[in-house]
Amino acid sequence: MKRRVCVVITARPSYARIKSVLQAVADHPDLELQLIVGASALLDRYGNTVNYIQDDGFDITSRVYMVVEGENLVTQAKSTGLGLAELATVFDNLKPDVVVTVADRYETLATAAAATYMNLPVAHVQGGEVTGSIDEKVRHAVTKLSGLHFVANERAAERVRRMGENPGAVHVTGCPSIDLAASVLASPEITFDPFEKYGGVGARLDLSGGYLVVLQHPVTTEYDAARSQVNETLYAVRDLGVQVLWFWPNVDAGSDGTSKGIRVFREQDGTDHFHFFRSFPPEDFLRLIHNSRCLVGNSSVAIREAAFLGVPAVDIGTRQAGRDAGANVINVGYDRLTIEQAVRRQMDSGRYASDALYGDGKAGGRIAKLLESVELSIEKHLCY
Amino acid sequence: MKRRVCVVITARPSYARIKSVLQAVADHPDLELQLIVGASALLDRYGNTVNYIQDDGFDITSRVYMVVEGENLVTQAKSTGLGLAELATVFDNLKPDVVVTVADRYETLATAAAATYMNLPVAHVQGGEVTGSIDEKVRHAVTKLSGLHFVANERAAERVRRMGENPGAVHVTGCPSIDLAASVLASPEITFDPFEKYGGVGARLDLSGGYLVVLQHPVTTEYDAARSQVNETLYAVRDLGVQVLWFWPNVDAGSDGTSKGIRVFREQDGTDHFHFFRSFPPEDFLRLIHNSRCLVGNSSVAIREAAFLGVPAVDIGTRQAGRDAGANVINVGYDRLTIEQAVRRQMDSGRYASDALYGDGKAGGRIAKLLESVELSIEKHLCY
Amino acid sequence: MKRRVCVVITARPSYARIKSVLQAVADHPDLELQLIVGASALLDRYGNTVNYIQDDGFDITSRVYMVVEGENLVTQAKSTGLGLAELATVFDNLKPDVVVTVADRYETLATAAAATYMNLPVAHVQGGEVTGSIDEKVRHAVTKLSGLHFVANERAAERVRRMGENPGAVHVTGCPSIDLAASVLASPEITFDPFEKYGGVGARLDLSGGYLVVLQHPVTTEYDAARSQVNETLYAVRDLGVQVLWFWPNVDAGSDGTSKGIRVFREQDGTDHFHFFRSFPPEDFLRLIHNSRCLVGNSSVAIREAAFLGVPAVDIGTRQAGRDAGANVINVGYDRLTIEQAVRRQMDSGRYASDALYGDGKAGGRIAKLLESVELSIEKHLCY
Amino acid sequence: MKRRVCVVITARPSYARIKSVLQAVADHPDLELQLIVGASALLDRYGNTVNYIQDDGFDITSRVYMVVEGENLVTQAKSTGLGLAELATVFDNLKPDVVVTVADRYETLATAAAATYMNLPVAHVQGGEVTGSIDEKVRHAVTKLSGLHFVANERAAERVRRMGENPGAVHVTGCPSIDLAASVLASPEITFDPFEKYGGVGARLDLSGGYLVVLQHPVTTEYDAARSQVNETLYAVRDLGVQVLWFWPNVDAGSDGTSKGIRVFREQDGTDHFHFFRSFPPEDFLRLIHNSRCLVGNSSVAIREAAFLGVPAVDIGTRQAGRDAGANVINVGYDRLTIEQAVRRQMDSGRYASDALYGDGKAGGRIAKLLESVELSIEKHLCY
Repeated sequence: MKRRVCVVITARPSYARIKSVLQAVADHPDLELQLIVGASALLDRYGNTVNYIQDDGFDITSRVYMVVEGENLVTQAKSTGLGLAELATVFDNLKPDVVVTVADRYETLATAAAATYMNLPVAHVQGGEVTGSIDEKVRHAVTKLSGLHFVANERAAERVRRMGENPGAVHVTGCPSIDLAASVLASPEITFDPFEKYGGVGARLDLSGGYLVVLQHPVTTEYDAARSQVNETLYAVRDLGVQVLWFWPNVDAGSDGTSKGIRVFREQDGTDHFHFFRSFPPEDFLRLIHNSRCLVGNSSVAIREAAFLGVPAVDIGTRQAGRDAGANVINVGYDRLTIEQAVRRQMDSGRYASDALYGDGKAGGRIAKLLESVELSIEKHLCY
Repeated sequence: MKRRVCVVITARPSYARIKSVLQAVADHPDLELQLIVGASALLDRYGNTVNYIQDDGFDITSRVYMVVEGENLVTQAKSTGLGLAELATVFDNLKPDVVVTVADRYETLATAAAATYMNLPVAHVQGGEVTGSIDEKVRHAVTKLSGLHFVANERAAERVRRMGENPGAVHVTGCPSIDLAASVLASPEITFDPFEKYGGVGARLDLSGGYLVVLQHPVTTEYDAARSQVNETLYAVRDLGVQVLWFWPNVDAGSDGTSKGIRVFREQDGTDHFHFFRSFPPEDFLRLIHNSRCLVGNSSVAIREAAFLGVPAVDIGTRQAGRDAGANVINVGYDRLTIEQAVRRQMDSGRYASDALYGDGKAGGRIAKLLESVELSIEKHLCY
Repeated sequence: MKRRVCVVITARPSYARIKSVLQAVADHPDLELQLIVGASALLDRYGNTVNYIQDDGFDITSRVYMVVEGENLVTQAKSTGLGLAELATVFDNLKPDVVVTVADRYETLATAAAATYMNLPVAHVQGGEVTGSIDEKVRHAVTKLSGLHFVANERAAERVRRMGENPGAVHVTGCPSIDLAASVLASPEITFDPFEKYGGVGARLDLSGGYLVVLQHPVTTEYDAARSQVNETLYAVRDLGVQVLWFWPNVDAGSDGTSKGIRVFREQDGTDHFHFFRSFPPEDFLRLIHNSRCLVGNSSVAIREAAFLGVPAVDIGTRQAGRDAGANVINVGYDRLTIEQAVRRQMDSGRYASDALYGDGKAGGRIAKLLESVELSIEKHLCY
Repeated sequence: MKRRVCVVITARPSYARIKSVLQAVADHPDLELQLIVGASALLDRYGNTVNYIQDDGFDITSRVYMVVEGENLVTQAKSTGLGLAELATVFDNLKPDVVVTVADRYETLATAAAATYMNLPVAHVQGGEVTGSIDEKVRHAVTKLSGLHFVANERAAERVRRMGENPGAVHVTGCPSIDLAASVLASPEITFDPFEKYGGVGARLDLSGGYLVVLQHPVTTEYDAARSQVNETLYAVRDLGVQVLWFWPNVDAGSDGTSKGIRVFREQDGTDHFHFFRSFPPEDFLRLIHNSRCLVGNSSVAIREAAFLGVPAVDIGTRQAGRDAGANVINVGYDRLTIEQAVRRQMDSGRYASDALYGDGKAGGRIAKLLESVELSIEKHLCY
């Protein structure tokens, strides 16, 4: 009988980080894919990731609405609680053999805990990395709930093992997000008109004239500062005079601060060289980045896919603090002048060499093979 | 201004393991105690722990009903989800400076996650220990969410540090449960009539004739086996012919299997030397144990308080697997003959020397002092 | 395409009141039955109704755990809220054409509201009746959410119409519970040994010597009094000296008061002519009643099925206050002497003539036919 | 001891309909106001009603986040379920003597059910009215849960009584929303600059040149049509060439359809005579309406406050279907030409005479007096 592999996707970036695994599981003759889409991945104002998933040909087994709307941290906790209660019912019906959880967003704890409490083996993708913020705690807590670890590189593997995980359960597969970057490197041209295909608001830019891509999320432990932080970036890129493609942030406590900063800016300032997008499917997004002069903000894409693509990046603030980064990244504080100077420096330096720090582009197949072949167990104990 | 210390108690054993801390916090001039009682600690059929808490003079700040009733693992997950959603609202109103979570029951993840997601510092009592079952995963996941660790002994401290926790945040305080054992050692006599004071059902025994105490919980990763497991113990102690004081288990998936085993046994078998209790306040419970000939079952009391009291114990099955145990414990499988022989051996050997493996009886004061004096922070990163 | 008829069963008595409809829907060539079992119907300590449902050959489409355990009214509200959130997800997946909700227990509001909010037509069985307690409010609120009404008799129909419901949507079908009573009348002998078949605790009685059946639920608006109320009944039937078959109550705030009253009585008093059962499947239950000398307590079975069976009944307290009752029922207050006298009077009077006040035994087929043939609509407005 | 009156506000329009009651309760020497703010009234993208409440000087006793975000009807049900579970905990802590619920939005069923299930008396404001949509069912279901009815006029009172409510519990107080309209009539001038004071986006209009106010909500039983419906209105008022002040809709399934319609229109069409507002405090909103040439959309303000103010209104579609309306209202279908013609007719006809159909402006004081003086009871039965 085929092993039932249940993958839970809760946000736009998670999809990019697991898509090649979905494909490889769906294509594997001895695996059955059960795909649950929940949280902000279902929501229009966070880019309707669910539509991209379906457009890519994946069947969605179950949808779980779980985002409790609000403007403060209390609703992050409540959303996770609601998701935990609901995912338990879903797992109870689907009876998967293994549950795959992706990365470290707060609501992924619901996936890992529901599966663990129901005696289902949990496989975690992207453990062992290091950042700041709540993500840092969630990531390692999920590691301690999981029995199978698919990590990006040897440094991550070492951290997972040192936390007491069974070395035999830690597999360096590379990050599946790099698989998409590798496929984009094979056909990097922007053959579509982004303004026509993906709408958005703002000026219709001439991409051949060079442009920046900006993606800045609120940092949840600095909730109140979200709006002022995004302002620094807005004014920095405005003052650079380069064309800007700006992407809206994920759902998070503070996202309304960030969103409000962006909205007020749009209404008050000359933004004739700005265009604002909700979301893109991952490959087209990576094509935009590949052809940009610099990636700006605090997305992990800077450190991960952009490193592989060799695109210069300016990483702002503490969100990626401590993460292993390649030569393509300059980290700066929340200060418009510093940001402006760093972007100029990166535009001057131009493209970097491709860096396989987070994978070689073959993670999906490796993970599917492991999901089919490894012995699945729910018992674990500290390996010291 | 006083620091607000919020402690969440969700079950009978958790109260015993935190009571001396509650007292020390309540007595500390610079601390304010916020006491939340939830889950099975509120429920009649798990012994109404909330009544003992109030009888001890503590004011309950908030009550949170969160146990979704059921007979399988799905309701453990749902209960935790409901608790997470509710505790978020409670913390939002109480605005504590630090949240204290106790040990490793499944629902304690709700406490740790709600606090973490709301940027509240989390202090964990009893991290770094090693057992089997879901508890093992929950305990270490809570460690990764927590910023402050109050552990029982140096071995536990070493495990917490090796998991990457900041060594400066790991404090060997001893386990507060030993504080109660120490106070019982100071006045160990059973001056009350347990049958009159605590009711229960079954024969009125003559305790001066010697007796066993049995406390056996369902092991949640062996759900279906709960009933047959408890049967082995029931028949073993029946055949020993010694008087038995039996305590009902905690709320858990499988508790109905365990309970049903006990009920059927009571109705079918001669149980004229058995008495069944729901629950006791911790001190009187420890007095019973101190004066017993052997403690039988799978409670951690065998390894922890009974070691300090020097009471022989027979630990059955995997629930305490891997836990650091003293000389007073014999571990056996789920087999009535083996259990019977082990209990005989322990009754023959008699009392052991007091072992301070889990503390010296002064944990409460140490923890209160630390809660008052340490710098509280929500930022953490792996210390490797 | 077949119409999908989704029936939600949440408690033991609801099953008896809808079973003949389930059968008729399942047998109808143009209907597809979707059966959801939730709340106390899933729980062991309320008789595991789900097992009887499966033993009767029905497939269960979905299970919904929703009972938040507790000892006060707050958990009734919380359970209903949890059920509402969960049933929405279930309906979203099942996409029924019509949802059937049964009677008036508090948690049935979750069924009616979830369906209404999702623009699904709601059919209500047993509207228009009159009682006391919270049930009274729930029943009529469900009527106002429902678009289709299957009522027991013309008096109920008249009440539903007077509340402003469209007369064309009110159908006098009889109560499906009477269908089971009719089938029992066709073969009324107790051909099984109830003690062997259904276990329970207490004396093994000789049913040929005559016996009472007692079924007493807590009355939720009189929460604190539940225990003293059940005591009056316990001592009344004890003093009568007749054999007693006693059934445990449903899950309700106060059920622990009632249960505790029963437990204490069992342990303190001579109960050698009592036997306590958890639950029976409906037909065997009705056979027991049919052959009893009197039905005692506050169940609506006294007024409904017992009237059809011609069995004398003593109805205690306010729970059935205002309900249309036949000649077989004497209502008395919570007083042991009055109860005792009323039971004596009923035993002396003996069997009554069958009364079709709540139906003629053909409700199931009528309701299935209507579910297949009527126009389903979600729009409604007051018909005044 | 003062009676504790607990009022639950869940949306922007509910505040306008209860504000004068809040004031009167807060001012009453024998009443204590407990104010719960929840659902969309807490949310930034629905106008942060909570801020207006605080600016008006009311203390908020408790906040309840309960809106589960989504794009379909399932999340309306889930939000109500979450609210029901949470409000139970809040009521359990606040121990009110009576709970006041306002009007008929879907989530108000959570308030009425939580209070009813906890044996708290429920007072309902604005029962007995008649509309289309889910509101119609919710309103009358809340009536059946409530024990005290404060209705707008004799027609509403008659409907509530005919539903079987105790005539002595039905009080014609007028609708509190008219109290605000009355206060605005006393000082109707727009003395503030709406663009400066309330921001919004779009052109800075010259209000002295005459303007329309538009307020159109999605109609939840016509979910898919929400976007095309709003389009008809958008193009109708564009083609009229009159200045337009447009207000965003409430949170509702379909609101994203409506919002998207508005957003796309703003980006594609010349909207130099449009200004879009999120929300206003009620009095300033009524001042805008009072000075407008016509109110357009499907808000009940057209039928209620605008009737009292004598402002012509064009009511579109079925949302207010069946509601008692005065001479100031023309109802039309979802068709841009018909809408355009109706608005022209209303602008030509000019101001109407004030109509006290929904109250005389003194409801708040009457209701507070009744809340203090009537006997509160939780028992009720059909009065037929």
